[in-house]
Amino acid sequence: MQGLMQDWPLTVDRLLTHGATWHAQREVVTRSLEGPIVRTNWGEIHRRAKRVSNALKRLGVQPGDRVATLAWNSGRHIEVWYGIMGIGAVCHTLNPRLFADQLCYIINHAEDRIIITDTTFLPILLENRARMPSVEHIIVLADAERTASLKTPGLLSSESLIEAESDDCVWGDFPETQACGLCYTSGTTGNPKGVLYSHRSNFLHTLLTLQTDVMGLSVNDTVLAVVPMFHANAWGLTFSCPAVGARLIMPGQKMDGPSIFELLETERVTVSAAVPTVWQMLLAHLKTTGERPTTLKRVIIGGSAVPEAIVRTFHEDYGVQVIQAWGMTETSPLGTLSTPTPEIAALPFEERLPYLLKQGRPPVGVELDLVDDAGVSAPRDGKAFGRLKVRGLAIVGSYFRGDGGEILDARGFFDTGDVATIDPAGYMQITDRVKDVIKSGGEWISSIEIENLAASHPKALMAAVIGVAHPKWDERPLLLVKLREGETAEADEFLAWLEGKIARWWMPDEVLFVDDIPLGATGKIDKKVIRARFEGHVLPTAQPEKV
Amino acid sequence: MQGLMQDWPLTVDRLLTHGATWHAQREVVTRSLEGPIVRTNWGEIHRRAKRVSNALKRLGVQPGDRVATLAWNSGRHIEVWYGIMGIGAVCHTLNPRLFADQLCYIINHAEDRIIITDTTFLPILLENRARMPSVEHIIVLADAERTASLKTPGLLSSESLIEAESDDCVWGDFPETQACGLCYTSGTTGNPKGVLYSHRSNFLHTLLTLQTDVMGLSVNDTVLAVVPMFHANAWGLTFSCPAVGARLIMPGQKMDGPSIFELLETERVTVSAAVPTVWQMLLAHLKTTGERPTTLKRVIIGGSAVPEAIVRTFHEDYGVQVIQAWGMTETSPLGTLSTPTPEIAALPFEERLPYLLKQGRPPVGVELDLVDDAGVSAPRDGKAFGRLKVRGLAIVGSYFRGDGGEILDARGFFDTGDVATIDPAGYMQITDRVKDVIKSGGEWISSIEIENLAASHPKALMAAVIGVAHPKWDERPLLLVKLREGETAEADEFLAWLEGKIARWWMPDEVLFVDDIPLGATGKIDKKVIRARFEGHVLPTAQPEKV
Repeated sequence: MQGLMQDWPLTVDRLLTHGATWHAQREVVTRSLEGPIVRTNWGEIHRRAKRVSNALKRLGVQPGDRVATLAWNSGRHIEVWYGIMGIGAVCHTLNPRLFADQLCYIINHAEDRIIITDTTFLPILLENRARMPSVEHIIVLADAERTASLKTPGLLSSESLIEAESDDCVWGDFPETQACGLCYTSGTTGNPKGVLYSHRSNFLHTLLTLQTDVMGLSVNDTVLAVVPMFHANAWGLTFSCPAVGARLIMPGQKMDGPSIFELLETERVTVSAAVPTVWQMLLAHLKTTGERPTTLKRVIIGGSAVPEAIVRTFHEDYGVQVIQAWGMTETSPLGTLSTPTPEIAALPFEERLPYLLKQGRPPVGVELDLVDDAGVSAPRDGKAFGRLKVRGLAIVGSYFRGDGGEILDARGFFDTGDVATIDPAGYMQITDRVKDVIKSGGEWISSIEIENLAASHPKALMAAVIGVAHPKWDERPLLLVKLREGETAEADEFLAWLEGKIARWWMPDEVLFVDDIPLGATGKIDKKVIRARFEGHVLPTAQPEKV
Repeated sequence: MQGLMQDWPLTVDRLLTHGATWHAQREVVTRSLEGPIVRTNWGEIHRRAKRVSNALKRLGVQPGDRVATLAWNSGRHIEVWYGIMGIGAVCHTLNPRLFADQLCYIINHAEDRIIITDTTFLPILLENRARMPSVEHIIVLADAERTASLKTPGLLSSESLIEAESDDCVWGDFPETQACGLCYTSGTTGNPKGVLYSHRSNFLHTLLTLQTDVMGLSVNDTVLAVVPMFHANAWGLTFSCPAVGARLIMPGQKMDGPSIFELLETERVTVSAAVPTVWQMLLAHLKTTGERPTTLKRVIIGGSAVPEAIVRTFHEDYGVQVIQAWGMTETSPLGTLSTPTPEIAALPFEERLPYLLKQGRPPVGVELDLVDDAGVSAPRDGKAFGRLKVRGLAIVGSYFRGDGGEILDARGFFDTGDVATIDPAGYMQITDRVKDVIKSGGEWISSIEIENLAASHPKALMAAVIGVAHPKWDERPLLLVKLREGETAEADEFLAWLEGKIARWWMPDEVLFVDDIPLGATGKIDKKVIRARFEGHVLPTAQPEKV
């Protein structure tokens, strides 16, 4: 027996339409590439997004076609985002931090028909133009004059296109399962893979994030979206802000401490979201200048594990709540948050802190499981490791064009590639990547836990741990340390530093000092490169014993 | 092109499963019919609900079958609610405030196979047992001993059934469009009509209500659900509380001031939801005793317009925020809320108050339209009246068994039967029911506005206004007043009282003093009965002029 409720497809154009209908005057403020602060609002963005749709249709864009954006966070970027999605085309957000080869690979793989770009990224596109045969048009987010000044034949100006169109355009009117957005994973192993979001998954993800215990955005919030729109949909902020009529501040390309602080204060920001690096820059700026944020209440931090110093400084020095969030491109991205339960909230700060440093608990709609190599669920004791698997209403089912094959297990769970624990209070903590975990004598050693400890040594600038083949134990840990400038150290100093902090059998078999620890495009340590460098390395413990 | 995200059907069993998985120990506290406070938790409710499912299957319940409940709010009621829905059967909540004839009509219309009831309602069921041929079993929410003491052959004990079963049972595994709940409208005109909720609509409604600007429930909340589960799903609380792991307090059948106050304090309630009458009783109790709620932060009030005194007293005397909510059985029920926007929140209380007394603004997923008789949208100027129409993700599409025929207009909007205004800030205000509005000379007069004003006269206990046929103006208002005990009054006193407060052409053509103003099952004035009583009544203004 079927229910008899209305059929109301969950398409994301309705999120902006709601914002425009009930919160038309609520501002969207952008620090433009040109410098000045530009103000618009949800009503105006809605009208201009409809014009973008008409312009795209005039250029021949059909439902399902991929239209790429290569742009910083801005009101203009939101207009094209909805202009593309509203007519059933797919908004493919390109990450400008990728190398040219990766960018070309992704554009070709997606078969993008149009690229809409900030002027900033025009050089890399033009240099590689011949390598993007599917791309019919490049549109710059600029007015006619600025576009003309770029002296590039065939380049289209977004403002000219928008001015020429009407703001009357039918949106939606396709199934909610229609593709809506495309975002490629950073791909530390193999080629980048595309996650093809549906209207439904993005709409549902928006409702998830709006819960009080998740992002909890309100019409009373002013949200500074530092996390880029090309970074897993800006964690959904470009959907959730119009959905509740929150005021949205877009930082453009300036994410340094002084620029972020200026926006926080002049725009009276209440909530912000960004990766740890951004907050480190902001906190360094505050420390240097003695300035203080006066309206900021809450920061949502994700993308990589949040260092204790960030949580502590925000709490102790500025009274700002830190919510750690974990997720990935494949999870839309929100998977878990460190929001305190009543039991955790009641603890003194020092006892609460360890929970705030974990990745947290899932909202309804996200299911987590931890399984060992045999597929058995690990106990939630905060100690047992397992592969972290997820299932839910906004989790990837398969990659674009079937890359990677069948990625769900028999029960429909996606393997995140992370190794994690879950404690009795339900807080999940990522301890390593599955591929980086060191398998020693049938047990797992967390490379990340050792490298975080090593990196906290006063002489260390950075540390990395990889597993190296060992004849007896299968793998044993090798610790690489990059020292701070001017420092010298002995291996024993680091082993002594680790002593007592980790299990004895986790102790690295060798410590090497290196000049360079390679990083990937997203700023994370690139273990693939390190492993390649140390291929065939023989640990001292693996030497044939001297007779 | 279809998105490639997981297929994760939105079935409501997942809401409780989430609560049981991540908030197993969070309490559900019930004031039992027998008197004592009974404590359970989401984990235990989940296990017992699975046993209910197995018991129902053993009794032959199939997906789509209707299983009715006739019960106060309690942990046991939640267990059977999920036990029914989890296996794809339909939980039909019966309103015990209905008269026996209506109850029988509804049970027969729904073809309920089983009725699960509190002992309180056993007499009415047994008296009318012969009139319910579809009902195969009556289960009382009681243990074996209590059930035996009722000395009713064939009666089943819920506890006996539960004890006999395993808590292993597959839930879900059917399409999200599967029917899930059935609730009949109170039906002030014609027979009650059934709203058949789907799993999808209830799941989506849950996500809507969890938004910060809607009900904003959190794992840190203790929620007192006074609004009954048979009253439009307790406004979704039995879904939303397990979905976020909120602590839930169920008042059983005691909703008087002292009982509610006792629960508020002993259970440290932070949020509660109920109709105005409940709050009037509570506030009267507080005034009499001088007691104060110490943990309550927010009350959500709906079901009928919230009197100013309630908002003012909660705000001024107790620092409790009142959120007015509007909705109906057909809207799952949440339609709008009076949550302040930044502009309204910034106003001094006296200027903010008029907005708090309106029904408020819709969340995303609820679309409102106001149309005049010609179907043209009314301006949002706070003055123009229109028929209030709604469309959205949890709004009725058609009534059960097609009653009432096609109920959506060409654009898919449902006509609420209410007349409303929307002001420039987006706040909707219900001014009347369409059928109660008085059509005078082609213009609309709000019967409710006049009767509210008349009822505020110091001598009045209650007032009602109906339109009476008029040869010249089509209809003209007749004001009926029930005076306070011992009072006497002249018609002119009431006309003078209204003078200047309403438009001159809204002034009633006649004022009559009556001993009785009839109320319907939900406590609202029953205008159908009044109109029947005054059928053929001739207003003095309609008399043939004396020659």
